[in-house]
Amino acid sequence: MGQFTDLDRWITASGNRDTFLRDLSEWRRIPAVSAESAHRDDVRAAAGRLAALAKEYGFTGARLLETGGHPAVYAERIVDPRLPTVLIYGHYDVQPAGDAALWHSDPFTPVQQRGRLVGRGTLDDGQLLMHLQALRAHLQTHGSFPVNLKLIAEGEEEIGSPNFEKLVRRNARLLAADTVVVSDTTMLKRGVPSMSISLRGLVYFEMTVDGPDHELHSGEAGGAVENVLNATSAIQSALMDPFTKEVKVPGFYDGVVVTPEMRESLRRLPISARELKRSFGNVPGLIGATPAETLERVAFRPTMEFNGLAGGYQGEGAKTIIPSRAVLKFSTRLVAGQDPAKISAAVIKHVQDTARKLPGVRVHVRELSRGAPVAIDPTHPAVQAAAQSMKEVFGKDVAFTGEGGSIPPVTVMQDVLGAPAVLIGMGLPDGRMHGPDENIPISQLQKGVRVLARFYERVGQQISTKQRSGTALG
Amino acid sequence: MGQFTDLDRWITASGNRDTFLRDLSEWRRIPAVSAESAHRDDVRAAAGRLAALAKEYGFTGARLLETGGHPAVYAERIVDPRLPTVLIYGHYDVQPAGDAALWHSDPFTPVQQRGRLVGRGTLDDGQLLMHLQALRAHLQTHGSFPVNLKLIAEGEEEIGSPNFEKLVRRNARLLAADTVVVSDTTMLKRGVPSMSISLRGLVYFEMTVDGPDHELHSGEAGGAVENVLNATSAIQSALMDPFTKEVKVPGFYDGVVVTPEMRESLRRLPISARELKRSFGNVPGLIGATPAETLERVAFRPTMEFNGLAGGYQGEGAKTIIPSRAVLKFSTRLVAGQDPAKISAAVIKHVQDTARKLPGVRVHVRELSRGAPVAIDPTHPAVQAAAQSMKEVFGKDVAFTGEGGSIPPVTVMQDVLGAPAVLIGMGLPDGRMHGPDENIPISQLQKGVRVLARFYERVGQQISTKQRSGTALG
Repeated sequence: MGQFTDLDRWITASGNRDTFLRDLSEWRRIPAVSAESAHRDDVRAAAGRLAALAKEYGFTGARLLETGGHPAVYAERIVDPRLPTVLIYGHYDVQPAGDAALWHSDPFTPVQQRGRLVGRGTLDDGQLLMHLQALRAHLQTHGSFPVNLKLIAEGEEEIGSPNFEKLVRRNARLLAADTVVVSDTTMLKRGVPSMSISLRGLVYFEMTVDGPDHELHSGEAGGAVENVLNATSAIQSALMDPFTKEVKVPGFYDGVVVTPEMRESLRRLPISARELKRSFGNVPGLIGATPAETLERVAFRPTMEFNGLAGGYQGEGAKTIIPSRAVLKFSTRLVAGQDPAKISAAVIKHVQDTARKLPGVRVHVRELSRGAPVAIDPTHPAVQAAAQSMKEVFGKDVAFTGEGGSIPPVTVMQDVLGAPAVLIGMGLPDGRMHGPDENIPISQLQKGVRVLARFYERVGQQISTKQRSGTALG
Repeated sequence: MGQFTDLDRWITASGNRDTFLRDLSEWRRIPAVSAESAHRDDVRAAAGRLAALAKEYGFTGARLLETGGHPAVYAERIVDPRLPTVLIYGHYDVQPAGDAALWHSDPFTPVQQRGRLVGRGTLDDGQLLMHLQALRAHLQTHGSFPVNLKLIAEGEEEIGSPNFEKLVRRNARLLAADTVVVSDTTMLKRGVPSMSISLRGLVYFEMTVDGPDHELHSGEAGGAVENVLNATSAIQSALMDPFTKEVKVPGFYDGVVVTPEMRESLRRLPISARELKRSFGNVPGLIGATPAETLERVAFRPTMEFNGLAGGYQGEGAKTIIPSRAVLKFSTRLVAGQDPAKISAAVIKHVQDTARKLPGVRVHVRELSRGAPVAIDPTHPAVQAAAQSMKEVFGKDVAFTGEGGSIPPVTVMQDVLGAPAVLIGMGLPDGRMHGPDENIPISQLQKGVRVLARFYERVGQQISTKQRSGTALG
């Protein structure tokens, strides 16, 4: 383990920690639910609060960038044009709280419980503030910062970043950087440092199945008309074999490659089926015969998920109706080698082809959002700087894994800015990201700040001038 | 067509009609939703109001019979112990309004629109009041009534009559009758008189599928854990082939017989595919290649219906979660020859067997209610009396058809009281029973009263003393 530095001392001092936690908690009291139009003003308030915090923690030029939707927050700390530039990407919006009854505390009132900070966005967006605290630690300890720093935080990540690409294209010079660092991924388990070198892509769909124009009496019409919930199930099982979980959309697996090396890296991971079941919400069984097989499915293979479905009677007791409409939300997670545009078209066509076998209903399917998968070169100097920093703080070698989740903006920044990404995520599998009781251990947040403080020190040295992109300082 | 009698004149007099419609409307303003515990007091209020109306229209001894659940209403008009006794069965509870946005008027404020009475229960329960009005017509016109009359109206029909059998067994002597008349079925179409001589049975189930103990992030866990909406779909398609609609529960079709005569009677019915599509909520297609095939499926064949399903995210836009729980309500409609107890056990076993192939979820399935199918002898004197009365009022021969719906109490009364049923239903296919904008044409209600007034006159003559059960007057 690396020595305990002045930076570590500043970060772990209780006063500094408490200020950080207070700022994070107050920020997260704002219900910045980007998916719900009723929260539009809250989203903007959370953006304003983030800009104010950025300024307070040492950034300059903090401001909102309008997108047509929810605004993004930009800030910077330009130290010396000759130094490399790191762009921090994050988001300040959150997922809806979901069923409030499933939370043990108010979703939008972060609380400290058994060493954890619990509340919507504490894990998912909380990691963004680790970067602010790392900046402050440097400034307070050394009076200076070792690289140029830029920050872009969007307010539409949870709704698929509909305006982000346009924003980045319009502000390509402002955002130019040598590397993009993102803290929105998950470590394999607590105490086992790992870094994701791949991200799955995501295409999200909504399908509406319409049958009779009103609910029918199931006695009067049962047998005569197509049931929209049957039609939905028919389409679900046409999309994916419900037992083998094989996606049946033609061409879906084209380009998917899982190498023996990728398999081997997962086989070596110190995690048991029991631990996986617990971390996945205490499920009674996993898909995959071994932990490595299960992890391979999340890290390196594409999947299809049904995210929500509703139709017909959902109240107490029995109601003998034939429902009039069903709405299914579903999505695919894609890996490197798959083309999201092709997949999207193939899924939509497959739904439509299946619907033709169900002439008693009208089926409409559309894409809600799309993001490409990402592959990261583990030998890139920024990735190596991050891995060394994690190793020092956690005292263990860092495992390179694949992230099951998707961060579509990472693709945009790689494509538009030419800036490779490094994913330094402090999430934990039991952090309930997007679920009830979302949380992060306070010690994990603190370790994250220490990793980042080291990373910023190291990355400037490791990215040599010749490796830097010509557009870096735009 | 039969001559226009004094009874017809009294019934069609506008003052008498308006009083009847006012009483029906005021009664139906009470939201007697038996499925929802919040409406418990409303259900009781509707019972009290019915008892008061029964008294006002000529019954004696009107009172509530407690059941442990919602009360039943009993009333009688005993004319002469030597005359036959007709027991009217009906119900005063209603289905929930469902999505209020789908109604064009308030569900619990009956209104007259283009000759129809529109509101929850106007069709479904409104027909019960036709009997009261027929009684009043006789008393006002002739000062007497031609048979002994008993009335039993329950408040739990819409929740599967959980306490009815117990109630009938406890009150078998009170309810003893020669025949039971029920007005809760549907005519084939407006102007085409028909009577059902079979009722489908019903077994209603609720299935809960539990996966992770909280919603998971679909990126972090997608592929690793069973998706409850996939498992639900797997079980749905194991229960019924989603394309052929064949129920795949072993033994499900045992005992089902559709004779050439039954098929022929449907083939002769004057109804087109276009009319059927319109009456079934303007669906784009029907199941069955011809109208007769479609009607056979409703009248004489068993089916499986998915009544409601909910799981996961149902809000605006996209939420990338793996749901934690799905709840499916489903039911089977059964025909004569099928044993509901065996079917219920077979369905539950089939769900459980299928669930074993889905080890990542916990599946619980239970029966919510059960009712046996009913077959009626069309040569029974009470059925003949009804058919002749309908023929006189509608001016056309009466077609005997099968009713797709279920009235479980009819089985109970046949079994416990030994009283054969006659189904004199005035519902119309576009009456939206159980749906939004439930309605019945006022002229149809009036014709129903006229049919019943004639039926009561005729049934006393046609049920000869020797045909009467010894327990008739208990």
